Amino acid sequence: MTRVGYQGEPGAFSEEAVVTLFAAGDAGAVEPVPCRTFRDVFDGVEQGTLAFGVVPLENSQGGSIAETYDLLLRESVSIVGEVVVRVDQALLGLEGSTLDGIRRVWSHPQALAQCEEFLARLGADVVPMYDTAGAAKRVAEEGRADQAAVAAERAAAVYGLQVLASRIQTHGDNQTRFAAIAATPTAPLGPPEKTSIVFGVRHVPGALVRALSTFAFRGLNLAKIESRPLGDRPWEYRFYVDVEAGMDDPLLADAVEELEREGRSITVLGSYPRWRWASEDAG
Amino acid sequence: MTRVGYQGEPGAFSEEAVVTLFAAGDAGAVEPVPCRTFRDVFDGVEQGTLAFGVVPLENSQGGSIAETYDLLLRESVSIVGEVVVRVDQALLGLEGSTLDGIRRVWSHPQALAQCEEFLARLGADVVPMYDTAGAAKRVAEEGRADQAAVAAERAAAVYGLQVLASRIQTHGDNQTRFAAIAATPTAPLGPPEKTSIVFGVRHVPGALVRALSTFAFRGLNLAKIESRPLGDRPWEYRFYVDVEAGMDDPLLADAVEELEREGRSITVLGSYPRWRWASEDAG
Repeated sequence: MTRVGYQGEPGAFSEEAVVTLFAAGDAGAVEPVPCRTFRDVFDGVEQGTLAFGVVPLENSQGGSIAETYDLLLRESVSIVGEVVVRVDQALLGLEGSTLDGIRRVWSHPQALAQCEEFLARLGADVVPMYDTAGAAKRVAEEGRADQAAVAAERAAAVYGLQVLASRIQTHGDNQTRFAAIAATPTAPLGPPEKTSIVFGVRHVPGALVRALSTFAFRGLNLAKIESRPLGDRPWEYRFYVDVEAGMDDPLLADAVEELEREGRSITVLGSYPRWRWASEDAG
Repeated sequence: MTRVGYQGEPGAFSEEAVVTLFAAGDAGAVEPVPCRTFRDVFDGVEQGTLAFGVVPLENSQGGSIAETYDLLLRESVSIVGEVVVRVDQALLGLEGSTLDGIRRVWSHPQALAQCEEFLARLGADVVPMYDTAGAAKRVAEEGRADQAAVAAERAAAVYGLQVLASRIQTHGDNQTRFAAIAATPTAPLGPPEKTSIVFGVRHVPGALVRALSTFAFRGLNLAKIESRPLGDRPWEYRFYVDVEAGMDDPLLADAVEELEREGRSITVLGSYPRWRWASEDAG
């Protein structure tokens, strides 16, 4: 069994990401391993107790998960794959509870934010927790009919809860993109088509425009750009870009080399196959 | 009295931002008004129950506050000033409690993240709450010697707590930048030196490089660039930039006009004086 770590409790969207990604590949039987924190997932991969980890990168509504981006800077870990999961949030309560009777709703802050309009109409107190499935577990354990959790419908089955409302997120098409990570140098989960790169920029924007031009000039498309503060130096940033090419593409290798020559701190986080929905396979 | 809204309870860093910004200006006597959510601050400014609002934009360690960036898209509200506050986190407990006896620590998730190394050594359970001062209030109300809050030292005085440890954040120089908002068209809090602009980009990066070049070509510096998902269209983004010039600068007016001519959706969020530390005034 290939042990693949994810943050959260059974029934979490991250667990679904593990199953979806590895069912699509040929890694053999997979054992999803729940971990308490993102850091625990990275530690497990680094120390070899996990073959892979699956961590969220960004949500189409909430934006990037800053903690993941910071942890990806660890030199001993690479991105080897990506997977996108549709995030349909549901309101889960005890068997026999009713929507009208709910006074308190637990969930992860990002899930609460995704369902803000629904929750505002419901008028219950919202209370943040570390993950959605953990909130469902808590509702089941506390056994109070006036409490509910925002979580995946599948968490209802895991914890014996009832679905009080489905697809309660404000934007119907809500998706989260996850990265599969492995200890370097593991082979990626398929032929490289996309590459994640991080670089520091001394002075925005002259330097940022030049760095981005290095890719644009070669016709290399960026799927995404994200800035994160350096932390120890207030108001300086590093930039993460996803380039739509593998590191085996001579144009991309050339662009990275040029940025290195210019004395920039630049790190390739990984080169991996692009996620395809099952419906795309036919095309 | 000028009523200025902020998110949080008395003793919050946001309250300090209100006092710091308006003490430096000449808006007369100021009444800081605590609000439950960021949205409540924006609503109050929009509806005229608040003359100004002060909301966090970014922390030098944790990064941007996504919710603020999304709320800034409201057409009836403008950025009219900025202020930077040093965020020294402290661990606050009941009078007579000791560091060794703390089993549970409450605070805002970003504050908990800022103090991750200290809290890992402490080995207590960490529990997220909506704000730091609210966590201090809760510790005081529950009256248990094994509970503590991560908050500003000034919150200890507000809620009658004891400082168990000071400056517990991982990066010593931790700062948060806040925006002052007002209903448009209010005059800014001084001569415009910095301008916040948001624009949509259809295809990254060609379009992003061209848009950034529009500023760079005119020698206009960007202090910051931030991306946020469009929400209703997965994996499309809008970009926020802070330009180091006022909208009264013909070069900036020209750059914005060029971007508009190219058919981009572009919005000027506000033009306002740059924040200066008191030590800079002498220079």
